[in-house]
Amino acid sequence: MSGHLLSPDELEAALRAIGAERYHNLHPFHRALHDGRLTRAQVQAWALNRYYYQASIPAKDATLLARLPTAELRREWRRRLVDHDGDAPGTGGVARWLKLTDGLGLDRAYIESLEGLLPATRFAVDAYVAFVRDRSILEAIASSLTELFSPTIISERVAGMLQHYDFVNSETLAYFHPRLTQAPRDSDFALAYVKEHARTPEQQKAVLDALKFKCAVLWSMLDELEYAYVTPGRIPPGAFRPDAA
Amino acid sequence: MSGHLLSPDELEAALRAIGAERYHNLHPFHRALHDGRLTRAQVQAWALNRYYYQASIPAKDATLLARLPTAELRREWRRRLVDHDGDAPGTGGVARWLKLTDGLGLDRAYIESLEGLLPATRFAVDAYVAFVRDRSILEAIASSLTELFSPTIISERVAGMLQHYDFVNSETLAYFHPRLTQAPRDSDFALAYVKEHARTPEQQKAVLDALKFKCAVLWSMLDELEYAYVTPGRIPPGAFRPDAA
Repeated sequence: MSGHLLSPDELEAALRAIGAERYHNLHPFHRALHDGRLTRAQVQAWALNRYYYQASIPAKDATLLARLPTAELRREWRRRLVDHDGDAPGTGGVARWLKLTDGLGLDRAYIESLEGLLPATRFAVDAYVAFVRDRSILEAIASSLTELFSPTIISERVAGMLQHYDFVNSETLAYFHPRLTQAPRDSDFALAYVKEHARTPEQQKAVLDALKFKCAVLWSMLDELEYAYVTPGRIPPGAFRPDAA
Repeated sequence: MSGHLLSPDELEAALRAIGAERYHNLHPFHRALHDGRLTRAQVQAWALNRYYYQASIPAKDATLLARLPTAELRREWRRRLVDHDGDAPGTGGVARWLKLTDGLGLDRAYIESLEGLLPATRFAVDAYVAFVRDRSILEAIASSLTELFSPTIISERVAGMLQHYDFVNSETLAYFHPRLTQAPRDSDFALAYVKEHARTPEQQKAVLDALKFKCAVLWSMLDELEYAYVTPGRIPPGAFRPDAA
């Protein structure tokens, strides 16, 4: 890749090819989740761990917002904070995620305490926030481009989970519905930004690597979930134990 | 724990109890490694990933060294840098680790490139370096206390691997021998430091939590190794594939 300058459309095609190979809709744990092959306890473990990702997204976005140089860029990125934190208590994506954990019978104070979190979830999510803090603005924006692929996974997830699990319903899955319009709007902006600003082979490689990094964050979270909660006897010390909750 | 001040010896006992429950000698992947139940390819994957941990220890120690307030403390901690980086090319712990990866038939440039690293290994190790950078000096020193437990695991490992695997020998396992004297010397210092300086229940809880954190770093690395290289079909995109090496 290095040394060869891509056209903006070739760059987009290369980004989409990364998603086609590395996005976590391909992960065996997600296939099992969507196909109804998980127990309620395993879905609880997924929702509990994914909560930390959801709750860290505003920190990630505020970290980038603090580094953006123009009001125009900051206004654009600020919308993401509104989406996740809402305008009033009980609104926004993080609050909607807690409706899912509520619906799965998990104690809200326990979820918010992060006590039962898998350490690997924390390390992966923290790596994402650190990436957005430490890398170039171009790479930070590029790392959000997994949203290019999220409408597909969300549609599969909601349909599959409603069909297969009697312990979820459209109200507890309320998190996902607004994401079907928010994610494309956000990724349209981010994709246009990187297509315009990645003007050297090195910048284009950095953009592609940023998307690979982000795919690895999401993928590794599912690795550990499958390891800990599907393989018998593998829940790490201190992590959520469904039978004890 | 919080609210109750422990005597220094009670604090030591509480630290040793954490090790007895959470140190990675108890992990099923280490049991398999030491009992001869891994393939050469699986041992390669372990050595490749553990290389990133070894190579990051000097960064961890230099990060702490930069924060230590006295020449006495810095001299003490500087010894760790000497142990790991040596006094000349080819000496020190990192170089000795590469003798192991050499002996396992892995290309040294490939190992040092980190290309085949599991993302979860990177996230866990980077979390350790960030912890030492961001937390109090007391917590940073306490996080090194897994060395209290390492002589046992090293003795088990060397004996077990020499007995069971014809693809290692005492020369390729040269990393471990000096650690049998370095680790106790280092952990004696760190243990005395935390016993002297953790003088409130809050500080004692922070010390115990730091050791739990470090145990989780080491444990989660083995979780992902077992998931990726023992469960069939689970090597994540981009990670080391033994059959392709």
